[in-house]
Amino acid sequence: MPYATEDNITELAARRWATAESPRLAELMTALVRHLHAFARDVHLTEEEWMAAMRWLTETGRISDDKREEFILASDVVGLSMLVVQMNNRFGPEATPATVLGPFYIDGSPAAPYGHDMSDGAEGLPLFVHGTVRGVDGEPVGGAVLDVWQADSDGAYEAQLSEVDEARLRAKYRTRQDGTYCLRSVVPKGYTIPMDGPVGDLIERTRISHFRPAHIHFLIDEPGYEKLITHIFEEDTQYLDSDVVFGTKEELIVPFRRHEAGTAPDGTTVATSFATAEFDFVLQPRT
Amino acid sequence: MPYATEDNITELAARRWATAESPRLAELMTALVRHLHAFARDVHLTEEEWMAAMRWLTETGRISDDKREEFILASDVVGLSMLVVQMNNRFGPEATPATVLGPFYIDGSPAAPYGHDMSDGAEGLPLFVHGTVRGVDGEPVGGAVLDVWQADSDGAYEAQLSEVDEARLRAKYRTRQDGTYCLRSVVPKGYTIPMDGPVGDLIERTRISHFRPAHIHFLIDEPGYEKLITHIFEEDTQYLDSDVVFGTKEELIVPFRRHEAGTAPDGTTVATSFATAEFDFVLQPRT
Repeated sequence: MPYATEDNITELAARRWATAESPRLAELMTALVRHLHAFARDVHLTEEEWMAAMRWLTETGRISDDKREEFILASDVVGLSMLVVQMNNRFGPEATPATVLGPFYIDGSPAAPYGHDMSDGAEGLPLFVHGTVRGVDGEPVGGAVLDVWQADSDGAYEAQLSEVDEARLRAKYRTRQDGTYCLRSVVPKGYTIPMDGPVGDLIERTRISHFRPAHIHFLIDEPGYEKLITHIFEEDTQYLDSDVVFGTKEELIVPFRRHEAGTAPDGTTVATSFATAEFDFVLQPRT
Repeated sequence: MPYATEDNITELAARRWATAESPRLAELMTALVRHLHAFARDVHLTEEEWMAAMRWLTETGRISDDKREEFILASDVVGLSMLVVQMNNRFGPEATPATVLGPFYIDGSPAAPYGHDMSDGAEGLPLFVHGTVRGVDGEPVGGAVLDVWQADSDGAYEAQLSEVDEARLRAKYRTRQDGTYCLRSVVPKGYTIPMDGPVGDLIERTRISHFRPAHIHFLIDEPGYEKLITHIFEEDTQYLDSDVVFGTKEELIVPFRRHEAGTAPDGTTVATSFATAEFDFVLQPRT
């Protein structure tokens, strides 16, 4: 191999990483080398900037742990996460679109019956979300599992809290044979992403809004259909058009209707005022 | 702002980061967004690959500490460090070229007189490196400080060792009025980069050699001249043409001549066999 020069180093590095045993890793690494180098050349990256980047990356890793995923957050705020989601979930126009998973998903939430209150005592206006899960041809999907999670009224997810015994604002609901589901929770609030780390530090040096609009996360993974990871967003909430992670989709915005005390969508009686949101999840058949 | 789609998200993200208060940060971030997205689109990055990348980045940060700079190592092995060095050190053909700083530099090495032995008892064949420091027009640079560091015969730098009291294989020499310098050390060996972290894990999945050729680091930062960060490499050493960090330069390769016991270049007598390397550092005037 010839010695590196400013002109040939990109080619040398790409050729070297093309020796990866897996053809896909070779493809990924050579493309990464080319794009990284193209970035550095385009902006004529200085040595001080390079060193600042090394420090930023190190700090981003060091602040991460079981409860905090600062690199996922970084990917979210530069639109990379949402780009990857969209490239890999090209559903038809009738299907419910996917959006970001986010860093707060906890695997293994407990099964909850129809209408179960997953709030675990969290404060807030009671909210019933109900509707059906069906395929794009209209067939109801009975027995489908809706894995649901959301933030509390302080904007904190269970994954961010240090002492939680029970599952909190997360549960797995199953649709009935006619595809219908109903969950009980509390109306979520919009919240800021964590601003005390390297991602927050970058955002503070811009005019970017660091908020997400109020939403509830859903994951539905049924045989015969493409896995759907999505949110629903409240229609009257703030930040819909400035979502810091680019996650908002027109099709996922739902009115949260307010009601006086009375009968909820699952037939139970609620003694206080409450809200309801109706949303049908339409699954893309797996090809 | 419109909601994100696969088509518009790159533009939306670039526009958002263009709000950075510093024009340079705006330039860096919009270019980073565009190149990162172009990479993801070119390879059609899957969600699993994206998640693997997030884990790799997190682990790379978490293994880093005061003694270990895994992100600098990552930058080194994809040729990014050497590209940045070359773009920012475009010296004339007469000047000594720059090469990578590497992750093992320790600031504040002790001053050492002409001929001082910096090996601190490290094993190996005694080596005298001597020559002059001058400008491209031939003028000697008297009083120039050569900040020198190298690995021991196990390939370990002081920065990698946990218990070292004295400065070990590092020191600051000053040229005499005629620009001459002489240091005493031991012949360095080529060594492997640390292979027990995320960078090593990637390299092991390729046929890339994970060694660096034997070398000694120099940093010379004199008023009136461009800062020079460079190495000298032993001519007869292995891995010159496969340096894992792309650091080798033809102009930096020097014969290490072997001698029987006798008089060293600094006039002292050496009772064992030893080696000498003569190298003149030629500094680029600051413009």
